[in-house]
Amino acid sequence: MSKGRLFVISGPSGTGKGTICKELLKKRSLALSVSMTTRQPRTGEIDGVHYYFVSKEEFLEKLAQGGLLEHAEVYGNYYGTPRAMVEEKLQQGQNVILEIEMKGAAQVRESYPEAITIFVLPPSLEELRKRIRGRGTETEEAIRLRMSKTLEELQELPHYDYYVINDILEDAVRCTEAIIDAESVKVDSTVTELIRKYEEEEQTL
Amino acid sequence: MSKGRLFVISGPSGTGKGTICKELLKKRSLALSVSMTTRQPRTGEIDGVHYYFVSKEEFLEKLAQGGLLEHAEVYGNYYGTPRAMVEEKLQQGQNVILEIEMKGAAQVRESYPEAITIFVLPPSLEELRKRIRGRGTETEEAIRLRMSKTLEELQELPHYDYYVINDILEDAVRCTEAIIDAESVKVDSTVTELIRKYEEEEQTL
Repeated sequence: MSKGRLFVISGPSGTGKGTICKELLKKRSLALSVSMTTRQPRTGEIDGVHYYFVSKEEFLEKLAQGGLLEHAEVYGNYYGTPRAMVEEKLQQGQNVILEIEMKGAAQVRESYPEAITIFVLPPSLEELRKRIRGRGTETEEAIRLRMSKTLEELQELPHYDYYVINDILEDAVRCTEAIIDAESVKVDSTVTELIRKYEEEEQTL
Repeated sequence: MSKGRLFVISGPSGTGKGTICKELLKKRSLALSVSMTTRQPRTGEIDGVHYYFVSKEEFLEKLAQGGLLEHAEVYGNYYGTPRAMVEEKLQQGQNVILEIEMKGAAQVRESYPEAITIFVLPPSLEELRKRIRGRGTETEEAIRLRMSKTLEELQELPHYDYYVINDILEDAVRCTEAIIDAESVKVDSTVTELIRKYEEEEQTL
């Protein structure tokens, strides 16, 4: 059985990468990577489903062993992607999807270079601004800062493998599906296995 | 406007690459590359549509100028893919599809390295044999020879970018469409243009 592939979905915040992932999971057989965190579980959150809840000691030990594909500290809590969980699913032939912010994506590129990275773009800055304003959770000043951060983050696009413009959600999902499908028929070192299959068959003809 | 891409569909004969192309052209806006040939037009064949019909002198001159992406001689007639016609469509932003046999595909890889090459595979040798037998045009000995040639040709798979297994035609077409769609959102040198678009927009916000 051929190994699965790791797809990393990232991009500036507000571009809808989470929604794309949610829709993808409805349509495709993909394993969603579960993060490890030191923060307390919230009501309804299940260990091993929403997060792996661990102590700070466990987290730091895992990190020191190189057991995390990426990690970050947010408001004093640690978050990270356990390499073993991802590897296990890939070995089982499952494609794994990992939705993370851009610093995490950069770390995954280093720690797992075979990962296929997808950058989610807003159709325009104006549209992104509209969407964020629509939420009504940020001041105009915060929005302005966010726009200039987005522009900065856009400079990282050349390090990604693919980009998906999230204008109409359905199209963006279809586009991401095309990437997943195309990657699964890409010629790589595993095709020798495929060739062998035909060679073995010829013996029996 | 961004440049189109050249997709080369090839593979052993009998695998149905022609049928895949025909279906693709119904569903997608793709330009089909038109070959140049020195053979006489058959009834109903239109110059510039089915082939560009040229004299041997014109053909050889074109070849000497490096004006062909690939060429072959079959039963004393020359066939080739005019580079200028393909380039023109690509410049107009159109994706071009080129269905050719494997030696031609190898030449295109040399003459136009940006080409995206797709290898069409039979689901199994047994199935390929069945299909060829079904046509009733070849002797058992010819079929046996063809099987061993197919196996030989399979060794070239690692030089291709993608493979498509033509088991159920509809799936094979969908898979080829995914490749075309994914390639169109691949990050390459043209993304600097895309980044610039957002940068210019920010000036106006």
